[in-house]
Amino acid sequence: MLESARLGAHAGRGRRRRPAPRRRGAAGDAARGAARAPRAHAATGGLPMRRIATIAAVLALVLGAGLYALAQQQVDEAKRERVVSVAGVKYHVLPATLETTQWGWLDPKEPPKLVINSGDIVAIETMMHAHNRIQPGTTMDELVALRKANPGGGPHSVTGPIYVNGAEPGDTMEIRIRKIVPKAFGTNFHLPGKEFPTVGLLAPEFPNGFVRYFYLDWERRQAEYKPGIVIDLQPFPGIIATGPDPNEPKEKAGPPIRDAKGRTSTLRPWKNGSNMDLNELQEGTTLFLPVFHKGALIWTGDSHCRQGNGEVNLTALECAYREIVIQPIVRKDLKIEWPQVETATHWIVMGFDEDLDEAMKIAVRNGIKFLSEQQKLVPLSRDEAYSLMSIVGDCRVTQVVDIRKGVHCMIPKSIFVKKS
Amino acid sequence: MLESARLGAHAGRGRRRRPAPRRRGAAGDAARGAARAPRAHAATGGLPMRRIATIAAVLALVLGAGLYALAQQQVDEAKRERVVSVAGVKYHVLPATLETTQWGWLDPKEPPKLVINSGDIVAIETMMHAHNRIQPGTTMDELVALRKANPGGGPHSVTGPIYVNGAEPGDTMEIRIRKIVPKAFGTNFHLPGKEFPTVGLLAPEFPNGFVRYFYLDWERRQAEYKPGIVIDLQPFPGIIATGPDPNEPKEKAGPPIRDAKGRTSTLRPWKNGSNMDLNELQEGTTLFLPVFHKGALIWTGDSHCRQGNGEVNLTALECAYREIVIQPIVRKDLKIEWPQVETATHWIVMGFDEDLDEAMKIAVRNGIKFLSEQQKLVPLSRDEAYSLMSIVGDCRVTQVVDIRKGVHCMIPKSIFVKKS
Repeated sequence: MLESARLGAHAGRGRRRRPAPRRRGAAGDAARGAARAPRAHAATGGLPMRRIATIAAVLALVLGAGLYALAQQQVDEAKRERVVSVAGVKYHVLPATLETTQWGWLDPKEPPKLVINSGDIVAIETMMHAHNRIQPGTTMDELVALRKANPGGGPHSVTGPIYVNGAEPGDTMEIRIRKIVPKAFGTNFHLPGKEFPTVGLLAPEFPNGFVRYFYLDWERRQAEYKPGIVIDLQPFPGIIATGPDPNEPKEKAGPPIRDAKGRTSTLRPWKNGSNMDLNELQEGTTLFLPVFHKGALIWTGDSHCRQGNGEVNLTALECAYREIVIQPIVRKDLKIEWPQVETATHWIVMGFDEDLDEAMKIAVRNGIKFLSEQQKLVPLSRDEAYSLMSIVGDCRVTQVVDIRKGVHCMIPKSIFVKKS
Repeated sequence: MLESARLGAHAGRGRRRRPAPRRRGAAGDAARGAARAPRAHAATGGLPMRRIATIAAVLALVLGAGLYALAQQQVDEAKRERVVSVAGVKYHVLPATLETTQWGWLDPKEPPKLVINSGDIVAIETMMHAHNRIQPGTTMDELVALRKANPGGGPHSVTGPIYVNGAEPGDTMEIRIRKIVPKAFGTNFHLPGKEFPTVGLLAPEFPNGFVRYFYLDWERRQAEYKPGIVIDLQPFPGIIATGPDPNEPKEKAGPPIRDAKGRTSTLRPWKNGSNMDLNELQEGTTLFLPVFHKGALIWTGDSHCRQGNGEVNLTALECAYREIVIQPIVRKDLKIEWPQVETATHWIVMGFDEDLDEAMKIAVRNGIKFLSEQQKLVPLSRDEAYSLMSIVGDCRVTQVVDIRKGVHCMIPKSIFVKKS
């Protein structure tokens, strides 16, 4: 989920504290507990009391989290002992805490939370949006207030960065997605179009907000949407990123790409991956991302448990992961400009642009380049590659709600046969 | 295949005749034979002799076809006896001849070639493009000349119209596609981008033309693209249409939608279907089209044997059909505004617009309407339908080369389960 309007002007309202609602959740309860404070009368200022109370509660949570963090002993996260043995194989485990996650921004100066070698295996936990504050029971008013509480940044919580020894700018980071297991709860919502007219494909036609929560039955790999409608779970990370591209072009729409601190918003996809929302990126697939920073700096978040191509109302079946197990491999032998994916059956090329027509062109150019330059199974001219993209390249609308829209084209491996 | 540049200015060149090249083909040979005429010197006018010769040859074919048609006995095509029995079932058979096909235009005043009742079965033959003149061996110069020979019209040959008794404007025509068997040859080509800079997604990047011909092995359902690359055949009609929408909006790009005779170009898709290029429309699927004219008036052509979503270089694996067997059913009980498709596993909604972003919006609106108003399995609000489109609606780029681009969204039937 994704696009944020410019709402900084609203973020300062109603700073007085009010008790935060106590909710059950796998993580983040400590932060919420710390935010509890004596009840106080809220200034009205013409706003409905309920809205003010909600905003105040959210701000209290934010402030509380900060105080809580300060109160902790300062430890270098990268130096914690997080290696375990799993059937004789070394696993790094990276829990999602307020120290190992960030809300809505990728900062190349963020100290690494884990340092690994190329080929190491990492099991990563992720949070729900807004530092785990979006949980079953969160109201639309709270969703709106949370969206306004982090202006310009994405709603996503991202775990990382992970520093990979030996990775240098210009290399390619191969990231094998070995396993994904979701936590038990999910949500889908759209924000009120009357207040967020550019957030969601048809926002002006849906003036009111909508939210629903789901129980994710991982034994059946299903969630009931409502009686009579059941959704198969197909988890994939909405965001998986290397450190931001220093040459990322300036925004053509939406809030600024970078803030004053030099952090890059998680709202958009770009060459470093980030908010790609590519639903093919499931267990068993491999992602290739260009490296722009020493150590590559890998993050993941915006965990999804099912999403259609388009993600039209703004959100997928948003969830969090008990674990996503990845194996990052530094590739010195491969140079790519845009993200690529390999599945058991397809190679996938991508394009991102504010204009879907332009995103389509970028994706198809990447497909032509892949077929005529990168793959070595059968030599192909550029004309042949263009022709093959037309006959078998399957181009889909990745998403239209992340400001920079996405198109991905799937090239079937099955067309390549042994010469007889 | 599809978009045509405004090339009317070139069509008048070099009117003198030259012998037409004799080619082998299942149909159209008679027309070609009739076009043979004594050799004459061609005026140069600064054009290369080879180009002039090609244009002259094409015009000779066109004129020849006209003369040939005039020479025939005038018979009302709709009154020919074209009913056969197949295992006790009545089949109408409609061969593709110069009398039963048109090149590039849908004319609601075109006399029907067949009159059937709702529920009747029809086996239809189709031609290759340009009244069957594109065949293995056709050169790029000939392809270019053929494109210029029918300004504003599509390159497609369409068989029809078929008049369905009882169909009235406002009804829906359900068309069950029961069987498709291709003829033996196929082609893929892109026109030279330097001459057709808007034809094909990346035309300016491919200044030279490209053409390749294929043998279609129907026993294996495969075609060899080149040694080491084999393509599975998945035939579907690029064009299947009811009579044109009298309220079709004026063109936003490309040549005029209608010519002076009131015929509608086959270049674009619209509410009556036409050049949809929807690769899901294979054997076993059902298409639903709004009816705009008494008798519905069904055409099909632009036969494809495989196409990726996007059809980016302009053409699919273009072919012709030995037969496409359809069963049209008049639906008085169903009102739709845009084409819909039902497959064994999905409902498909569509949107067409010059702007892919807008096409996406139309398709998603149609999906929301389908889920919240049309399907009756589980009642859904508009908010729920928007949400479900986001979670499971799979939106793909149908094509980007028919001036009006297309997006289709696939809604899986499997989400609807029996209530327990």
